[in-house]
Amino acid sequence: MTTDMRAAFLEKQGVIRLRTIPTPVPAANEVLVQVAAVGVCGSDVHYYTHGRIGPYAVESPLILGHELSGRIAAVGGAVDSARVGQRVAVEPQRPCRLCTECKAGRYNLCPDIEFYATPPIDGAFAEFVTIQADFAHPIPDSITDEAAALIEPLSVGIWACQRAQVTVGSRVLIAGAGPVGVIAAQVARAFGASETIVTDVSPERRAFALGHGATAAIDPLMEPVEGLDVDVFIDASGAAPAVRAGIRAVRAAGRVILVGLGNDDVELPVSYIQNREIWLSGVFRYANTWPRGIGLVASGKVDLDVLVTSRFALADAEAALNAGGIPGQMKAVVLPGR
Amino acid sequence: MTTDMRAAFLEKQGVIRLRTIPTPVPAANEVLVQVAAVGVCGSDVHYYTHGRIGPYAVESPLILGHELSGRIAAVGGAVDSARVGQRVAVEPQRPCRLCTECKAGRYNLCPDIEFYATPPIDGAFAEFVTIQADFAHPIPDSITDEAAALIEPLSVGIWACQRAQVTVGSRVLIAGAGPVGVIAAQVARAFGASETIVTDVSPERRAFALGHGATAAIDPLMEPVEGLDVDVFIDASGAAPAVRAGIRAVRAAGRVILVGLGNDDVELPVSYIQNREIWLSGVFRYANTWPRGIGLVASGKVDLDVLVTSRFALADAEAALNAGGIPGQMKAVVLPGR
Amino acid sequence: MTTDMRAAFLEKQGVIRLRTIPTPVPAANEVLVQVAAVGVCGSDVHYYTHGRIGPYAVESPLILGHELSGRIAAVGGAVDSARVGQRVAVEPQRPCRLCTECKAGRYNLCPDIEFYATPPIDGAFAEFVTIQADFAHPIPDSITDEAAALIEPLSVGIWACQRAQVTVGSRVLIAGAGPVGVIAAQVARAFGASETIVTDVSPERRAFALGHGATAAIDPLMEPVEGLDVDVFIDASGAAPAVRAGIRAVRAAGRVILVGLGNDDVELPVSYIQNREIWLSGVFRYANTWPRGIGLVASGKVDLDVLVTSRFALADAEAALNAGGIPGQMKAVVLPGR
Amino acid sequence: MTTDMRAAFLEKQGVIRLRTIPTPVPAANEVLVQVAAVGVCGSDVHYYTHGRIGPYAVESPLILGHELSGRIAAVGGAVDSARVGQRVAVEPQRPCRLCTECKAGRYNLCPDIEFYATPPIDGAFAEFVTIQADFAHPIPDSITDEAAALIEPLSVGIWACQRAQVTVGSRVLIAGAGPVGVIAAQVARAFGASETIVTDVSPERRAFALGHGATAAIDPLMEPVEGLDVDVFIDASGAAPAVRAGIRAVRAAGRVILVGLGNDDVELPVSYIQNREIWLSGVFRYANTWPRGIGLVASGKVDLDVLVTSRFALADAEAALNAGGIPGQMKAVVLPGR
Repeated sequence: MTTDMRAAFLEKQGVIRLRTIPTPVPAANEVLVQVAAVGVCGSDVHYYTHGRIGPYAVESPLILGHELSGRIAAVGGAVDSARVGQRVAVEPQRPCRLCTECKAGRYNLCPDIEFYATPPIDGAFAEFVTIQADFAHPIPDSITDEAAALIEPLSVGIWACQRAQVTVGSRVLIAGAGPVGVIAAQVARAFGASETIVTDVSPERRAFALGHGATAAIDPLMEPVEGLDVDVFIDASGAAPAVRAGIRAVRAAGRVILVGLGNDDVELPVSYIQNREIWLSGVFRYANTWPRGIGLVASGKVDLDVLVTSRFALADAEAALNAGGIPGQMKAVVLPGR
Repeated sequence: MTTDMRAAFLEKQGVIRLRTIPTPVPAANEVLVQVAAVGVCGSDVHYYTHGRIGPYAVESPLILGHELSGRIAAVGGAVDSARVGQRVAVEPQRPCRLCTECKAGRYNLCPDIEFYATPPIDGAFAEFVTIQADFAHPIPDSITDEAAALIEPLSVGIWACQRAQVTVGSRVLIAGAGPVGVIAAQVARAFGASETIVTDVSPERRAFALGHGATAAIDPLMEPVEGLDVDVFIDASGAAPAVRAGIRAVRAAGRVILVGLGNDDVELPVSYIQNREIWLSGVFRYANTWPRGIGLVASGKVDLDVLVTSRFALADAEAALNAGGIPGQMKAVVLPGR
Repeated sequence: MTTDMRAAFLEKQGVIRLRTIPTPVPAANEVLVQVAAVGVCGSDVHYYTHGRIGPYAVESPLILGHELSGRIAAVGGAVDSARVGQRVAVEPQRPCRLCTECKAGRYNLCPDIEFYATPPIDGAFAEFVTIQADFAHPIPDSITDEAAALIEPLSVGIWACQRAQVTVGSRVLIAGAGPVGVIAAQVARAFGASETIVTDVSPERRAFALGHGATAAIDPLMEPVEGLDVDVFIDASGAAPAVRAGIRAVRAAGRVILVGLGNDDVELPVSYIQNREIWLSGVFRYANTWPRGIGLVASGKVDLDVLVTSRFALADAEAALNAGGIPGQMKAVVLPGR
Repeated sequence: MTTDMRAAFLEKQGVIRLRTIPTPVPAANEVLVQVAAVGVCGSDVHYYTHGRIGPYAVESPLILGHELSGRIAAVGGAVDSARVGQRVAVEPQRPCRLCTECKAGRYNLCPDIEFYATPPIDGAFAEFVTIQADFAHPIPDSITDEAAALIEPLSVGIWACQRAQVTVGSRVLIAGAGPVGVIAAQVARAFGASETIVTDVSPERRAFALGHGATAAIDPLMEPVEGLDVDVFIDASGAAPAVRAGIRAVRAAGRVILVGLGNDDVELPVSYIQNREIWLSGVFRYANTWPRGIGLVASGKVDLDVLVTSRFALADAEAALNAGGIPGQMKAVVLPGR
């Protein structure tokens, strides 16, 4: 492998530039991964267009991208060298493994965690990345590079369904038919949900959802969801009106999981939540989801390849970040090896 | 027992009148309880002063009062007659026992439940009431009539602590040092909490809480609670600013239980909840708490007698409903047998 | 409807006789069900051949049969008369609804429960039965009478998988490829299990299991299961060697659910259980499973019709009880209306 | 600190010899602890008298002892040097932090864990030991060295009560009034148990238990426990008859936790477990218990000092291992600094 590599940097708000930098060297417990595919996430686009997400500001050039797969190109001294050549899906986080949260099995809540493409930690719009060996999850040949990259958003859907206790016979309402909403619908089905009702204002997205996991698709502007009496509501829209309406669709003792990011403060129907003893929470990334996600994709229960609607070379990373404007766009993928 | 009895009716908003009516006759599975003591709850006061709580409007004369104890005076045909004379704490609700919620052990969420003093179901400001036999819980002689009546608000505290998973070593923040807040602090201690931090703007109430369950008492106007990093926040204030501040005091993976009733819609720090994967819910009454509550009082772990600050005859029920204005008032009790 | 009906009585050990008796009259909260189909369970056969199961002895003539479906023929005074004519799957138990277990949502553990075909409570090898209205679960037209009857053993499988926490990606070992084992495999798949490994010494049963829910089938005499490191072991054999071997196949923190009935006392690998912190329990019937079971059958995720291998008229109930000797027999069904 | 230290080695079965060896050097993420107190555990005695426990054989000289406290004497390069001088209770295990179990929060089940005094890992009958920095838990001055050492067996009791879901009002049966049984009784009380019934054949031990956590003490030879209908049974005896009797004392839906080590295979009342849907498991060490344990001791809810009945210098470690024969002996402690 060469000692230099190319990477696409967010120089500052709105500016992406390809640069050549030294290939990173894996630490003793790490592997070096030659990146095969990187999905573009809404958070990448948000950093690109706004320069920050909440308290996380891009103050120096940053490599974006945290949905990725690749092939192990080298290993650190403490890692089995037989892993070189292995195809892997990368879980893009480095928990401390020492704190209360890590030791309790909630490493996603580790206060010292490093997460790809969250300032100042670099991400994966690059030819190579390093990651701790156990977070480079081997994948079978039956899973494509692109699907393997999208096990990251799949993990969000798995984590949401786990926290929501979706199970056999659950009726699940999902707001938003973007990639996370469609994935959540597929995952909920895999957990045994009997109904997955997806709402979106876009008829194209509703049609797409219906073909890929939703048992029903509703235009929330035309058909109110209040009173649906679902077991679980998963918000993948981040829109306050959708959140409020979705909560009012939940039965007594049901669960609400807020995945979409919106305003910091939102007016919620608190007495509705109290009177029905509904549990409400959110997801912050995920923990221990890759093995389960790999199984779901390998078994065909979840189809991630269908989500990929456009592909870009590393040199075109900026175009990938702007792909959201393409009609019918669902998920753009950067292929650094192209 | 006489065939007529006296009862204090809320005739309409702001008007209480003592009337003589036929003593109720227990159904086959019910007991007739001669009421010994009835606590005055904030909801009683709210019906008296406003004529309604949310959707529940007082449209015809209603007997208030749902915190009660007494002695079994008669039993229905299907109840063991040996129970006559037994002292009991009354769980003031009649679930249907047939619906999904009842059969799942969540009878408090039964859509067809009848609850004392919730229109149009009469309550306990009366000489006698009827209740299903298994909801008249026997109490030992060591528990006073007044304490037995207050096992109802104690049940709210137990239910809140159970839902919040308070356990050994928990750090618990409680907003509001009224009866429910003070009870919640005592209950949290019984569940093993190492810290019970109560907030209230009243110095008298803070002092009272410190002496009866709180390990610390804070004036929230002087000392912010944000960042306390508690495991559990229980709101017993119903005040939106207290709710918002309390949520921001909770650690990652902590729990928020909203007990106090305030506005239907409240602006909440949603991104804070999401980023820490906090679980938020409320309590709607309680289920299966009386045996545990009786044990807590009998063992001395919870002291309810100390909460009673004024006593009234049945004829003075209106004065009891107005007792909140008495300085230092914590809990007024009506004693129909006086 | 006629005032008399026919029923097959177990007169005493080994003797079945058809008798004409008065049609039962539903109590106020009950329905009268005209029985369409009744599955023969191993416990029915055991009462027939041994006259008892553990402490339950047949001391007077008893109607066997507890897996049943039918059509509502009449309703008690407190039941909506619109239900007459409705096709139903019957949950064959009458909990007290008053005890600690019932109110906690564990009505299957009610000490005063009455269960069909458990002495002295009559079962369903009859033209009509009564049951409390909420335990006569409506079924859609897409479910056959025979499948509706088998929602009872399906409920055992659902309850086992729920208690075992089978979920997406679970690897499940099931000992015994009789009806319950095969159903458990199908149910485990519906809960998301990635592997359902069924063991049976019969090659026919292994082949059948492979075609109906098992992802693998093992002859335990030829291939040891110890070390498989499964998440869950469900015993549907009742055979002590299978139980012991199955436990030794479970990973750390895994679950063992004993469904099959064998000896009262069994030697178990206790230090294995301790060192891996495995949870072991059993199932005692089920609670709240019919709605979920109906959904599983209606959706096609579970196929119960395939289990039925022989059919008998009510007059031939004794032949049905002896059908276990027919080669390839899986499940016999009595059709009283034939 | 000196470069050499003394340590008591189990040379082979039955032979303890004091040797001088190089003081261990802490790795980067470790601390060096000057040992203050080490409790003698039954497992230490078992290695001493039998040379092995199950598959773990002492094949080369081994330092015993895994219940310990001390003071940080030096730190590794990655540890805050301000910790030097800190008094600590040591959690005597080194999980890998990389495997499925570790990342799920069950690091006690890590297949690659190293545990003090389990061959070939040395323990704490020595002047110094090393441990990973986060497993050296700081203690307040109010906790003595000896009590701090006994937070290890306290952790066993905490873990048992957590797994058994002991909570407010629980009725708990504990077999065996040795140190672990007495500790379990105290811990159960701290979790809110209303009854802690301890059984032991020794009247002295029963009397001791009654004074230190037990609400009742029973001689199992005189008074059967079957039918007590407790919520939880914790076996701290390892005796098969006690285990069997204890299981039969548990109510429906209750829990059994086997702490005591006995035979690998034990005959259990399986149909009793099945018919009552009892959950049975064991404890294998503990995870994340030290902070909770320190809180229990510091608050006075658990009294560990009272358990210490004899003290030995390091040179007398063999006498400490033989102290079990001293009448009234509960817990021997080795004080290497004496």
